[in-house]
Amino acid sequence: MTNKTPNKNNVTWFNGYVSREDREKLHGHKGAVIWFTGLSASGKSTIAHLAEKALHGRGVSTYVFDGDNVRHGLCSDLGFGKKDRAENIRRIGEMIKLFVDGGLIVLTAFISPFRKDRRKVRSLLQEGQFLEVYVECPPEVCAGRDQKGIYARAKAGEIKEFTGISAPYEMPENPDLVIRSHEEDAPEAAKRIIELVQKHGLI
Amino acid sequence: MTNKTPNKNNVTWFNGYVSREDREKLHGHKGAVIWFTGLSASGKSTIAHLAEKALHGRGVSTYVFDGDNVRHGLCSDLGFGKKDRAENIRRIGEMIKLFVDGGLIVLTAFISPFRKDRRKVRSLLQEGQFLEVYVECPPEVCAGRDQKGIYARAKAGEIKEFTGISAPYEMPENPDLVIRSHEEDAPEAAKRIIELVQKHGLI
Repeated sequence: MTNKTPNKNNVTWFNGYVSREDREKLHGHKGAVIWFTGLSASGKSTIAHLAEKALHGRGVSTYVFDGDNVRHGLCSDLGFGKKDRAENIRRIGEMIKLFVDGGLIVLTAFISPFRKDRRKVRSLLQEGQFLEVYVECPPEVCAGRDQKGIYARAKAGEIKEFTGISAPYEMPENPDLVIRSHEEDAPEAAKRIIELVQKHGLI
Repeated sequence: MTNKTPNKNNVTWFNGYVSREDREKLHGHKGAVIWFTGLSASGKSTIAHLAEKALHGRGVSTYVFDGDNVRHGLCSDLGFGKKDRAENIRRIGEMIKLFVDGGLIVLTAFISPFRKDRRKVRSLLQEGQFLEVYVECPPEVCAGRDQKGIYARAKAGEIKEFTGISAPYEMPENPDLVIRSHEEDAPEAAKRIIELVQKHGLI
């Protein structure tokens, strides 16, 4: 498939001969992002990785993004102030847009505390390509799970702008799925992610 | 596969249950990047897209990166000065590292004029995952092909820091393949890319 669409600067964008639809056909499923949001140690990453394992087992092309593989690489120049957090999520959004165009189902595990930033990522994608999953967990439960002791350090003021302690978390208003990680275990939550993906006809 | 490797900040990196090798097995080929470098209008993008078409036809999971899908998105905040060009290539390098980890064969079509920047991208990847293709073409031939008239505008001084006119291009010292796009046509060049990919055992 070949097509040229002019962008805002009137520069033609050559989309190439292989489209997202072609890649999706090759992979046998649609491209999309499962966007997890929630406090630090709420369980986002654990659930995302378990869901990836289950999806991969069904022959789905997957990838998980989290602080580990993004904060040390693509966004290694950014800090945790509001402006840098916004730029962090902006870059992640632009990157995953390309992964989705590549026909993958990507799962992201970022605190992503601000509604505005999450909305911006959603706006980069097409209808049905962005599924928001809110991993809800009381801060005291998160703090209790925290093996690295970062909650304690944040409470002591050693870590500044820590979400849920000294920086705000804006919960999703209309998430596609809510997981209460203090009430259900991670494997159970991962199953619900698979059901969500099926419900939306992605696989 | 599960493993944890400490990074420079002694933060453990949880690699998840699905490894690059698992994704490569699913896709039936290895992950890698074919990095095209050369002057504007040398033919990088045309050849990359033709090679993608041929690879996709063989069932390979592919993606092409070029100025169109990166400069308007991930790197929309960057200009064309040396520092911004370096940051542009750095971000692209970090992003394609994740695509390669995702088990895709990616093709990139950026002028990427500086050896240092290209070397940095290579250093992010493992041996055999980065293949450099130099698309050689005399500047006067590139200028003659240029439908947008940007070479003329660069010569008139309307566009500053234009590679090959008012900004340097450092040719690769030891590329994996050289394509002389003024001597061979694009479909022929694309065939040589497939041969390169086969020679390196990627597919």
